[in-house]
Amino acid sequence: MSGFETLSWSLDDDGVGTLTLDRPDALNSFTVTMARELEEFFRVTAADDAVRAVVVTGAGRAFCAGMDLSAEGNVFGLDETVTPTPADLRDHLTEEPFQSGVRDTGGKVTLAIHELPKPVIAAINGPAVGIGATMTLAMDIRMASTKARIGFVFGRLGIVPEAASSWFLPRIVGLQQALEWVYAADVLTAEQALEGRLLRSVHEPDDLLGAAQELARSFVVGRSPVALGLAKRLLTAGAGFDHPVESHRADSLAMWHASTGDGKEGVAAFLAKRAPEFTGRASELPEIL
Amino acid sequence: MSGFETLSWSLDDDGVGTLTLDRPDALNSFTVTMARELEEFFRVTAADDAVRAVVVTGAGRAFCAGMDLSAEGNVFGLDETVTPTPADLRDHLTEEPFQSGVRDTGGKVTLAIHELPKPVIAAINGPAVGIGATMTLAMDIRMASTKARIGFVFGRLGIVPEAASSWFLPRIVGLQQALEWVYAADVLTAEQALEGRLLRSVHEPDDLLGAAQELARSFVVGRSPVALGLAKRLLTAGAGFDHPVESHRADSLAMWHASTGDGKEGVAAFLAKRAPEFTGRASELPEIL
Amino acid sequence: MSGFETLSWSLDDDGVGTLTLDRPDALNSFTVTMARELEEFFRVTAADDAVRAVVVTGAGRAFCAGMDLSAEGNVFGLDETVTPTPADLRDHLTEEPFQSGVRDTGGKVTLAIHELPKPVIAAINGPAVGIGATMTLAMDIRMASTKARIGFVFGRLGIVPEAASSWFLPRIVGLQQALEWVYAADVLTAEQALEGRLLRSVHEPDDLLGAAQELARSFVVGRSPVALGLAKRLLTAGAGFDHPVESHRADSLAMWHASTGDGKEGVAAFLAKRAPEFTGRASELPEIL
Repeated sequence: MSGFETLSWSLDDDGVGTLTLDRPDALNSFTVTMARELEEFFRVTAADDAVRAVVVTGAGRAFCAGMDLSAEGNVFGLDETVTPTPADLRDHLTEEPFQSGVRDTGGKVTLAIHELPKPVIAAINGPAVGIGATMTLAMDIRMASTKARIGFVFGRLGIVPEAASSWFLPRIVGLQQALEWVYAADVLTAEQALEGRLLRSVHEPDDLLGAAQELARSFVVGRSPVALGLAKRLLTAGAGFDHPVESHRADSLAMWHASTGDGKEGVAAFLAKRAPEFTGRASELPEIL
Repeated sequence: MSGFETLSWSLDDDGVGTLTLDRPDALNSFTVTMARELEEFFRVTAADDAVRAVVVTGAGRAFCAGMDLSAEGNVFGLDETVTPTPADLRDHLTEEPFQSGVRDTGGKVTLAIHELPKPVIAAINGPAVGIGATMTLAMDIRMASTKARIGFVFGRLGIVPEAASSWFLPRIVGLQQALEWVYAADVLTAEQALEGRLLRSVHEPDDLLGAAQELARSFVVGRSPVALGLAKRLLTAGAGFDHPVESHRADSLAMWHASTGDGKEGVAAFLAKRAPEFTGRASELPEIL
Repeated sequence: MSGFETLSWSLDDDGVGTLTLDRPDALNSFTVTMARELEEFFRVTAADDAVRAVVVTGAGRAFCAGMDLSAEGNVFGLDETVTPTPADLRDHLTEEPFQSGVRDTGGKVTLAIHELPKPVIAAINGPAVGIGATMTLAMDIRMASTKARIGFVFGRLGIVPEAASSWFLPRIVGLQQALEWVYAADVLTAEQALEGRLLRSVHEPDDLLGAAQELARSFVVGRSPVALGLAKRLLTAGAGFDHPVESHRADSLAMWHASTGDGKEGVAAFLAKRAPEFTGRASELPEIL
């Protein structure tokens, strides 16, 4: 039991967790409650050292049909009594009372995914539209069923791509493809999304979840949680750094910490031709940035 | 009538404009006059709210054969009496008298294209060489005829890729491909440029312009100019941001503005299953960066 | 004769140099001595104006099998008596006594490659694992033999990808592919690495080195060393800049310097339909950043 209203959650013996967006009657559409629960999941639940990797999928036939527009009142949860400026957002991003009516809820979720130092894989089992599409961009890898449909459809509603998608999408598919998909605001087939390099792979519907869990398992079994977490930090920071020397600083630190910890065991085990026994914990990741 | 010497211009009822580099006897080669006119076009003419998107093509058999080297005197328009430093450029970029002899004219054009908050599509109908190639990189999407030839040929003349191409090219085709093309300084076929992901698509010569206009039309008809403009701002800024939180700040603001404006109408129309009637204007785009 | 213990080096009449990692009995594995020699090679030897481009390959059947784990003592050369922080690395990166025990040796090598203003091509003739893989990322272009095997295997040893690879890898293959390869920590075939866009091309074993040298030759013969060097600076900086205006500043300066130097000769030769005679020197590259 997860204790969540909109999510269900299971964890296997290898530490591979499966998070299910679980409002199948509403096509797992995104609500303020789901946003709050997803943020809590990625910041608290998944931070437990027993969790080594997370696969995210949807219950029923959809992955996530986007913002639940049937919600009463202001569907975006915005406070229209303020008129925020760029300076407001720079200066007050962490002041919760002010932010509550201005910060994009999807971005709170994707920043939480981004900051979790563990592999996160999207298993897109059906329609993933709007925030249902953009939330997957902060996940490390996207796999999909042949039934998946992916839509950056914001433009059709007079709104914009959110959830920090403007940082992730060009770094995954390149700037030209990102612009075309957002301008077109169409719903892509799995094949189109694969061709455009948004997806890692496409699977038969019955095979998708197992394949995603298997890939996650291959990343974590016998591996150091510290080394994995530092690798995610390095690559996702490096993709944004101005200059390679910034990566050099961070990876020097990461290598120092890894090599005086789990790396020492890793090398010893390699030389002795035995399996390593790593003792590092992702919850105690050293600061490298 | 456009009032330009080197350009011609038309606008259809959907707001899709077609800008033609129009010096066919000189293969539409780039001159100081063309640079000034292109900058004026993208900063003034295209800023009109009647213009929703711009397709750029060339008159006759070329797109743009590069800098017109037959011009008398200093073909680059540079002032050789100064010796500029990086600090000069940082400190004085906006002081026109100083800049006139140092700032790259191609870059003035591409920054104007970059800052226009509307889709811009290159319809590359023939040879696009030197600035003829690099000017297209700041456009959002590149389509080409089978007769297109694209050349980052600067190295053959002892000069360098300009027009801010070093920012755009690696973000479109990746760093390895960008370096190879610039080092090789060869003229690519349309097929090679497509394979390297510089082009979105290749078309029969007679079909190219219509296909580009059709794509532009699909981006704008029934869409909010504010949402489109903010989306371009977000993606082109996001591709350069250091960290996703910068995108989160900008897209929170963009979503706030969109949702309290055209997005409110967009959602209402969607729920009522009717076409939206957007009233926002690109000329009044809120500041989000 | 190179004067190096771990490297051999030759230079042909066109200025195309071939650097060979030359410890074939140890599969050219990387040692502290090799790191020091590679840094010296790229900062001193290759800086000579007689050197126009560098091809890097391995002696015998491997390219580089990674860090030599058989070395006695601390294989990473780290000083475990310190506990470095991000601020230490920011503040003291250039203080050699402090750094010696903390700075990643692979990163010292890749920063030297990055700063050499000349084309560098990896000719990956066999296994390239760990630092053997990451050192190639700072090279401009990667070509491989069908026998190449490429492994970002750090995770299997409890350590992390280094050598500033987190800056380069996502800019070459995109963020999703970079994360998958690092998480998987598998050894890729040449075919897989080509498909993932890490490699420019794959060749028969006997053809690889010749093809790499030929490509290097095509970049430099008849070309200005200043224009080539500035182009490398522009593209590798541009890939990290926040905003196109930073590229505009740098390429305005680069174009000013090129055009008042070798570019003047290049244009004159082009107009006169004769071969240019460039006199610029890479060792006197103007500062543009």
